[in-house]
Amino acid sequence: MASPKTSTPKGTRDFGPDEMVRRNYIFSSIKNIFARYGYLPLETPAMEKLSTLLGKYGEEGDKLLFKVLNSGDFLSKAGGSDISAMDRSRLVSIISEKGLKYDLTVPFARYVVQHRNEINFPFKRYQIQPVWRADRPQKGRYREFYQCDVDVIGSRSLLSELELIQIIDEVFAGLKIKVKIKINNRKILAGLSEIMGQADKMMAITMAIDKIEKTGLDAVCRELAENDIPAEAIEKLKPVLSFKGDNREKLLLLKKLFKESATGLEGCDEISRLMEYVAGVNINSGLELDLSLARGLNYYTGAIIEVVVVDFEIGSVCGGGRYDDLTGIFGLKDISGVGVSFGADRIYDVMLSLDLFPSGLLSSTKLMFVNFGKEESLYCLKLLEEIRGAGIAAEIYPDVAKMKKQMSYADRKQVKYVALVGLEEIEKGIISLKDMETGEQESLSMAQLLAKFSNIP
Amino acid sequence: MASPKTSTPKGTRDFGPDEMVRRNYIFSSIKNIFARYGYLPLETPAMEKLSTLLGKYGEEGDKLLFKVLNSGDFLSKAGGSDISAMDRSRLVSIISEKGLKYDLTVPFARYVVQHRNEINFPFKRYQIQPVWRADRPQKGRYREFYQCDVDVIGSRSLLSELELIQIIDEVFAGLKIKVKIKINNRKILAGLSEIMGQADKMMAITMAIDKIEKTGLDAVCRELAENDIPAEAIEKLKPVLSFKGDNREKLLLLKKLFKESATGLEGCDEISRLMEYVAGVNINSGLELDLSLARGLNYYTGAIIEVVVVDFEIGSVCGGGRYDDLTGIFGLKDISGVGVSFGADRIYDVMLSLDLFPSGLLSSTKLMFVNFGKEESLYCLKLLEEIRGAGIAAEIYPDVAKMKKQMSYADRKQVKYVALVGLEEIEKGIISLKDMETGEQESLSMAQLLAKFSNIP
Repeated sequence: MASPKTSTPKGTRDFGPDEMVRRNYIFSSIKNIFARYGYLPLETPAMEKLSTLLGKYGEEGDKLLFKVLNSGDFLSKAGGSDISAMDRSRLVSIISEKGLKYDLTVPFARYVVQHRNEINFPFKRYQIQPVWRADRPQKGRYREFYQCDVDVIGSRSLLSELELIQIIDEVFAGLKIKVKIKINNRKILAGLSEIMGQADKMMAITMAIDKIEKTGLDAVCRELAENDIPAEAIEKLKPVLSFKGDNREKLLLLKKLFKESATGLEGCDEISRLMEYVAGVNINSGLELDLSLARGLNYYTGAIIEVVVVDFEIGSVCGGGRYDDLTGIFGLKDISGVGVSFGADRIYDVMLSLDLFPSGLLSSTKLMFVNFGKEESLYCLKLLEEIRGAGIAAEIYPDVAKMKKQMSYADRKQVKYVALVGLEEIEKGIISLKDMETGEQESLSMAQLLAKFSNIP
Repeated sequence: MASPKTSTPKGTRDFGPDEMVRRNYIFSSIKNIFARYGYLPLETPAMEKLSTLLGKYGEEGDKLLFKVLNSGDFLSKAGGSDISAMDRSRLVSIISEKGLKYDLTVPFARYVVQHRNEINFPFKRYQIQPVWRADRPQKGRYREFYQCDVDVIGSRSLLSELELIQIIDEVFAGLKIKVKIKINNRKILAGLSEIMGQADKMMAITMAIDKIEKTGLDAVCRELAENDIPAEAIEKLKPVLSFKGDNREKLLLLKKLFKESATGLEGCDEISRLMEYVAGVNINSGLELDLSLARGLNYYTGAIIEVVVVDFEIGSVCGGGRYDDLTGIFGLKDISGVGVSFGADRIYDVMLSLDLFPSGLLSSTKLMFVNFGKEESLYCLKLLEEIRGAGIAAEIYPDVAKMKKQMSYADRKQVKYVALVGLEEIEKGIISLKDMETGEQESLSMAQLLAKFSNIP
């Protein structure tokens, strides 16, 4: 029944109770871990000034911003000019000054600059909020979706990188998703550009390498050639990208290559020190130095991290890195930070596909009283008070409906126990309790019932 | 430092960690109670089609909708027509098809109609999400603010009204806010209009009565006169609005008046039955039948509810009522529902003013390790693993900074305990634990430390 009047805008979704309890399961698992590592919550508004957002995501990103019309008589600002003759961007700049946020990172940078005198640095914050992109909707890509970011800002310590790796490891272990954590360092990529004699083309090289997972080594080399990287330079890169070996062997290869690149050696040193930290703690997930890992976004300057699910095709479920100058775009220099973002929608899809959600998430109600009539329900209200007072989620069916209808309601709501309290039970002071799964029925006193439920998780 | 580049749009706010932990405290208290009564979570998108929103909130409401520009070349739809010559609403209809949601109620009605074949009726849902209104911002009024709605839809039972009153009572008792719950019934207001001989002017009468709290009885009477209500009709209403007495006395007065009004008597009957239910359970808050309570929004058809804080001026902190035809606007008739909405911002302000937030909300981190250097921090990482494994939120200061700086960080983050583990402690296998409140310091083994924290809530 998707009549045009009763549907959501293209690329947006309702989250009904089934989806909500599953999404809340993911978010609360993640939040608990963030809190255990000392991260604090933050929220910024849905709308930001366009002056905050524009120019931060490249030309393509600017086009994908949802722009909000100025309220009131927005056309008066155009004065007498002929707006029909204006091009789109000129008109937009007159009639719109706000946009929906495109990610959590730029508003976070704006927040840090705006509130820098109140913030307790190093600032460890997490942020779980929706963002909006006017992308063409397709399977798994929405125009409104949640991001789940965790960052430390105001410290250059590699302990922060370690902490994020520990958090990633705990999050996915908690959700029972087996993952591999891939790391690299932008300084290694810079070093590779240097030894190729193409230091000035580091961004183009990074963007090309970024696609290796999807398109393969040959396509990357073609793209590099198209960007005027000489063939002999590309030949220097190839063995690095295709090198097979463990993390230690990769670092040895790089250290040999980087004799002439201080930046490259610095990247190797950071990776080595991070590996030393990692070796000192318990990490369940595989951790792989992946020299072809690039991550497109250009504000990363140090470590980069990407998490993929083992034996499941879905792309990365978490990613991030260190940025040395994120707040520079708002005039605050020299604030280094590092952060990762969890892809809630993909994590949801993985868990649904692999059947990883615990059963009974929907059954918030543990016990439902059948409604036999006014007198009975007045009696049941007293019982309900006592039961809820003991912290047990319980309800009474609101209407005096047919038994079948009431039972079907309980069944669809995954309520495990139904209480039948008619005149006979009232007289005897008992509760007939029916187990909806086994069909078994037993007569209990209130004390027995409370005892029974105190043993149910 | 509110440089124009680093501020949020007018009427919107950042919620930093201090505000977030307090807001989360309110929301999680409320959610726990909703869940204990069997309500399930729902979320709808920030944007709705304008066809869903327009015409649902009156002319004023339509003007207060935030409209989102169509993406792509939105002007092409205007064809060759001279858009400079168009009036605003004509142009808007061409360049914008979506808006930010204005409340949670209309999107909920849209959801119910769209998903009616999947919903398990009676549908008990709660929804806590931001809404947007292009209102003039002022103290306590924002352009982005959270609503917190709880509704039962698909039942006419008064047990639902009772349940909402129980929930209201528990919510405010839990937050330690003393409130009075005022109730009335739209059928009583309809009955009053009937006995005034002005049944067709019920809405105008309701809207006038709605202002009595703010402007007083005389102003209400003047407004009624301006709406062409005859003086003798107004005289009939006056004694009802100014009647002093308890709930029982008020009902007696009404029953006498309503000899000629079946609707009025029905309203009295509903109130009496609800009162009977209420008498059967434990309600801490005062419950008052307030015959001047009207609630402006015109979709209410039965019970109306409003909650005010005792001895604190802030307006209502919760309100709602029964609506018999909310989904009718989307073509689905005869679905009755009842719901209330909690005013999160006002509740926040009350709690802050009356100092009702528990202390230590911000101190998610229970224990911080001072960072003495690389060797020490490697050792501390192992301890941290064990401590976090026991469910205790803990962190290590990421940098090897001066002691004063590290202590100041812990202090501002309201961390109660700081662990000092230098080379001496490592050698002895102990942890020096400093209580940041008392300044006391003690030496503990890991087992002793874990035991100590297991006794801290």
